[in-house]
Amino acid sequence: MADIWLNETLYPDWGQRFQVERELAHVKSPFQDIVVFESTSHGRVLVLDGVIQITERDEFIYQEMLAHVPLLTHPKAERVLIIGAGDGGVLRRVLQHKTVKKAVMVEIDGDVIELSKKYLPAIAGDAWNDDRAEVIVGDGIDYVAKANDGSFDVIIVDSTDPIGVGEVLFTDEFYKNCARILSDEGVIVNQCGVPFMQADELRETSLRRAKFFPHVTAYVAAVPTYVGGFMTLGMAKKGSKPEELTVENIQKRAQLAGINGQCRYWTAQVHWSAFQLPPYIAEHLPVSQG
Amino acid sequence: MADIWLNETLYPDWGQRFQVERELAHVKSPFQDIVVFESTSHGRVLVLDGVIQITERDEFIYQEMLAHVPLLTHPKAERVLIIGAGDGGVLRRVLQHKTVKKAVMVEIDGDVIELSKKYLPAIAGDAWNDDRAEVIVGDGIDYVAKANDGSFDVIIVDSTDPIGVGEVLFTDEFYKNCARILSDEGVIVNQCGVPFMQADELRETSLRRAKFFPHVTAYVAAVPTYVGGFMTLGMAKKGSKPEELTVENIQKRAQLAGINGQCRYWTAQVHWSAFQLPPYIAEHLPVSQG
Repeated sequence: MADIWLNETLYPDWGQRFQVERELAHVKSPFQDIVVFESTSHGRVLVLDGVIQITERDEFIYQEMLAHVPLLTHPKAERVLIIGAGDGGVLRRVLQHKTVKKAVMVEIDGDVIELSKKYLPAIAGDAWNDDRAEVIVGDGIDYVAKANDGSFDVIIVDSTDPIGVGEVLFTDEFYKNCARILSDEGVIVNQCGVPFMQADELRETSLRRAKFFPHVTAYVAAVPTYVGGFMTLGMAKKGSKPEELTVENIQKRAQLAGINGQCRYWTAQVHWSAFQLPPYIAEHLPVSQG
Repeated sequence: MADIWLNETLYPDWGQRFQVERELAHVKSPFQDIVVFESTSHGRVLVLDGVIQITERDEFIYQEMLAHVPLLTHPKAERVLIIGAGDGGVLRRVLQHKTVKKAVMVEIDGDVIELSKKYLPAIAGDAWNDDRAEVIVGDGIDYVAKANDGSFDVIIVDSTDPIGVGEVLFTDEFYKNCARILSDEGVIVNQCGVPFMQADELRETSLRRAKFFPHVTAYVAAVPTYVGGFMTLGMAKKGSKPEELTVENIQKRAQLAGINGQCRYWTAQVHWSAFQLPPYIAEHLPVSQG
């Protein structure tokens, strides 16, 4: 095997590198540079603009935590909007909740969807064909601007970092519309980067969400290929203060949703634990949690 | 600045790389190849046989979790033995417990201690001069073979992975002697690698510890430069089944020890949460936890 390595370019002076078994696709879409390659260490890997998005081997961690935590935080999550997540992995996890009646996914880059279907079919599984799923190739910013008030219970924003095509998903206008189209007890979640390397991302997006949502918090997940220790997922809620869920409460909701036994990272205990932020992370959450 | 990168060689096909600002030391000791370099991303970095051991920026995570968790698990940890940990960081955290009366540290490689004192002085701080500390340059295997029965309450094994000089710290003979020299309620902890990449290490060391200790478990920490998501720390206990500590119990013990307010990763909540293993890790712990 030729000794070819892919160096992630997310940070200028530190990062991960993968030995490349073979490149499967390299497409310059209208929005970004897309690479899919086969690695020996992590199975197939999706790379956007030089940044690792998903690997077959560890995708379950990010997807489970991005989907299950907000869906079990909302007291009755039936209508879910997913922005981005063109690989379909979040869609699959959302649809594992039998309590979900409708999941709309809006991905701006149709090439990401097509390449994922072709080269990473296991990540979405049958989700594309679920009757409850509606997949739209389009601009998430436009979608939330035009959607009706109160049309979703949960919004999951699976964006890239606030650079390139994903940058608009971190703006005031976007969050304002998200708050509007969520129902009274609506919950929004979005990735906030790895605070060890990107502390400003957690700080700034938390402040921004606090402008439009009364309750702002964050939780963590240890994703192997989002290098730098814990990544943070930011959560915000409309309406009443989120209940302080005990492990037992979370377990009950998960049983009702039918997701038990389908997870390799998420458990009710891991869910509770994810909100126990180490001080080096909590200090970058500049809003009173609640 | 010249564009010089250090590639970690722990795994053959995936790993981290650091931009090197300047190399501070490169010593071939009788035991291993030692490099200390200045990075722009993580401060100074200690590398043994090509594997990252400690960086100034994230060392607090590993050290706090390796020291505070076993010391608060034991009902009355007064005498502590540290094997390895030549940088002095574990010694410093152990001595933060005002309840500790004696801490013996046995490091085989005097060059690691000397280079750490010279280039990484903040990691150990004043620990080297603490009246309760005894620092021995010597072989941990010999030390545990010769020490008296019941002479320690807690043993902390801060080894490299089971390759090179650290390999003997993963043997039956080593664990057998550790069990013998621990007091009746004695606790031992050792690093068990990153299960996403090194699942066998957790599995095999757990089985090995179970031969000599009635209670075997593991807990996790997300250390940025031990890439691969959570690392595991294996814990085992003699005597009675470890109490199921609540967050409140842990908090009380920490107050008694006087470590509150000195930590940037450890909290009583993080401590409790560290034992909530994701299924993809728990499945490699082939012994009933207790």
